[in-house]
Amino acid sequence: MAGSRCKPPDAVVWPQNAEQVSRLAALCYGHGLPIIPFGTGTGLEGGVCAVQGGVCINLTMMDRILELNPEDFSVVVEPGVTHRALNTHLRASGLWFPVDPGADASLCGMAATRASGTNAVRYGTMRDNVLNLEVVLPDGRLLHTAGQGRHFRKSAAGYNLTGLFVGSEGTLGLITAATLRLHPTPEATVVATCAFPTVQAAVDSTVHILQAAVPVARIEFLDDVMMDACNKYSKLNYSVAPTLFFEFHGTKEALAEQVQRAEEITQNNGAFHFSWAKEAEERRQLWAARHNAWYSALALRPGSKGYSTDVCVPISRLPEILVQAKEDLKASGITGAIVGHVGDGNFHCILLVDPEDPEELHRVKVFAEQLGRRALALHGTCTGEHGIGLGKRHLLQEEVGAVGVQTMRQLKAVLDPKGLMNPGKVL
Amino acid sequence: MAGSRCKPPDAVVWPQNAEQVSRLAALCYGHGLPIIPFGTGTGLEGGVCAVQGGVCINLTMMDRILELNPEDFSVVVEPGVTHRALNTHLRASGLWFPVDPGADASLCGMAATRASGTNAVRYGTMRDNVLNLEVVLPDGRLLHTAGQGRHFRKSAAGYNLTGLFVGSEGTLGLITAATLRLHPTPEATVVATCAFPTVQAAVDSTVHILQAAVPVARIEFLDDVMMDACNKYSKLNYSVAPTLFFEFHGTKEALAEQVQRAEEITQNNGAFHFSWAKEAEERRQLWAARHNAWYSALALRPGSKGYSTDVCVPISRLPEILVQAKEDLKASGITGAIVGHVGDGNFHCILLVDPEDPEELHRVKVFAEQLGRRALALHGTCTGEHGIGLGKRHLLQEEVGAVGVQTMRQLKAVLDPKGLMNPGKVL
Repeated sequence: MAGSRCKPPDAVVWPQNAEQVSRLAALCYGHGLPIIPFGTGTGLEGGVCAVQGGVCINLTMMDRILELNPEDFSVVVEPGVTHRALNTHLRASGLWFPVDPGADASLCGMAATRASGTNAVRYGTMRDNVLNLEVVLPDGRLLHTAGQGRHFRKSAAGYNLTGLFVGSEGTLGLITAATLRLHPTPEATVVATCAFPTVQAAVDSTVHILQAAVPVARIEFLDDVMMDACNKYSKLNYSVAPTLFFEFHGTKEALAEQVQRAEEITQNNGAFHFSWAKEAEERRQLWAARHNAWYSALALRPGSKGYSTDVCVPISRLPEILVQAKEDLKASGITGAIVGHVGDGNFHCILLVDPEDPEELHRVKVFAEQLGRRALALHGTCTGEHGIGLGKRHLLQEEVGAVGVQTMRQLKAVLDPKGLMNPGKVL
Repeated sequence: MAGSRCKPPDAVVWPQNAEQVSRLAALCYGHGLPIIPFGTGTGLEGGVCAVQGGVCINLTMMDRILELNPEDFSVVVEPGVTHRALNTHLRASGLWFPVDPGADASLCGMAATRASGTNAVRYGTMRDNVLNLEVVLPDGRLLHTAGQGRHFRKSAAGYNLTGLFVGSEGTLGLITAATLRLHPTPEATVVATCAFPTVQAAVDSTVHILQAAVPVARIEFLDDVMMDACNKYSKLNYSVAPTLFFEFHGTKEALAEQVQRAEEITQNNGAFHFSWAKEAEERRQLWAARHNAWYSALALRPGSKGYSTDVCVPISRLPEILVQAKEDLKASGITGAIVGHVGDGNFHCILLVDPEDPEELHRVKVFAEQLGRRALALHGTCTGEHGIGLGKRHLLQEEVGAVGVQTMRQLKAVLDPKGLMNPGKVL
């Protein structure tokens, strides 16, 4: 819902290196001008809105891959490099970077928002895959969160500054380079899908698969409304029922076993049928529904705009919150489809809104807030991967409590005493 | 080397719950008394030394496992619970907590020092396995780093306070409960070992195994001196050569494949022979050398004390630093054996010191510092898992640079303005 409040900055600058970013930041800070870092602008929570005006520092011209260390499974990228660009560059190396938030976002922007996506159940989020950051602090000083040039796998040296800046949404400094952890490209991939009589059966299958230590790479949930939308949009013939989409990575032998286990578990939980595919074209067809989920949902109501919720709960609480969310949707008369990174307990309601209808916008906002509060009541979070941005600041307060917010404010105040770094966001 | 400087506190208190810890902290802080949190005292860097006197808050009487959520793969423990006690408690649940630093340390202490150990190559360190912390701040306020009662797998809500407190070594607050991420107990386990003609061949094998995405659970390196010590101590008959010890976790079918791949890779790198075992008693025998490494090293020189270095480097730089370390040991006339978590680039020189010989203590200190600087020069860290404590504060400054240390000092100053939380440590 951030879009409606978005304001343009007073100026946009395109620095070409960290030295220029540093001089720009020092200049803005000295003159009391707000600083808004900009990567690809693909964030969903209004993180690049210039609510107090100021200078947008657009980092897209810094798009070099600075250093690749294949034996160390690490790479250093500038803020203009997107995750797809990196994976294209890595193609011949036998390595890849698995975090994929859907949009072709910049990797430093993904670090700034602690992005995640469909592979997180196996490979973790940006929290787990950033080894070091080069950050221009608000006053222009250059910080290397783990020390300049360092790219070790682990350390116990002092406070985890990398972890502090990952997810800070541009409110503590500008990320001008990120050192990322790479993973070996899977030798082979199998995808699978199956439908269930109930949401509970789909979630139970997910828990059982995780408990059986099947190293599933992706496990995505689509509800009946979403499956119906996908059938219509992509002319497919799936059951209109709660459905799981799986992806498995491994050797051919290991994959056969993983798929067999997943099939057994889903069948024990009453799955209708289990289809799987190992060839690239078949895989693409089988996952078409999931890949086009966003556009399929939008097509349910041509002309509407999509708004995505982002709660995440302990996985045992997923069935009840999904059932509640569907009832709330019905009660509020909003068209919405559900897609979830179910292995992490994270799901999105894609809500369809007429941007010209303030009453409907209001209903959507009320629904999203209610859903956030339902997640909080179930020991969950109001944002699994999109961030707080502009619209969830009050929910953040409810989530971490008064002392949590006070502590965050103290950190913000000491690193950005004038409150000029991406003002109005997070806190 | 911290031991020689260690000082006792003026008083020790044994609170029984977080409320009492909070009142104690507020009382001490109000009176300007240093506060030293104490778990099991198994840390190696002098983290519990009361260098300025003050009150030691011994947390061992708070030893309850507060909450187990098997479907959510999470557990909440008080600071007196050790990792062995937790795993005993979990035995029937099908879950376990994999981080194992060797000593039977308390889990909250392990969180405070960002502990790690032999399983980190697959399961991560405390950084990756702490979901939430209850922290008593220096002034007595109670902080839940991820919000009270929350135990989701991921979140993008505000600053990562959990990450800030993990590894803060008691300098920002007292951890009074930790919510940990659990993992499914492996269905089966196989261990293996093989010897190599050179350190390079052992490290190359490690890199190739990681590149082949073999999900090895442990991969430990022992140098020739350590193998000789193990043979003597445990009356074994291993080759006196650089040696790798492996542990694999998985289903029986998956294990057969993992072991076969590892064997192929090590043989391609010139391994002498590859032995493996799957039954519990055989496994125990095969890993006896690794399990007793510390005591075997100490037995090289009866009456001596052991001091452990802890550098970690990008894995590609391991062979050169290991060769340098062995040459440095020789040149300085110090008896030392090497054991390493080679999959993470982390290794320990176990140095044998006569505690009554100040000249030898000095030589050991010079060697350890030189090794720390060698690691820093290779883009590594002076501490992979033991922490900074008292003795590595100057190396931390070299590691993270002036702006890094300034930033850490700012964070410390804002959360502990009187500088009373575990003073003299880290910064």
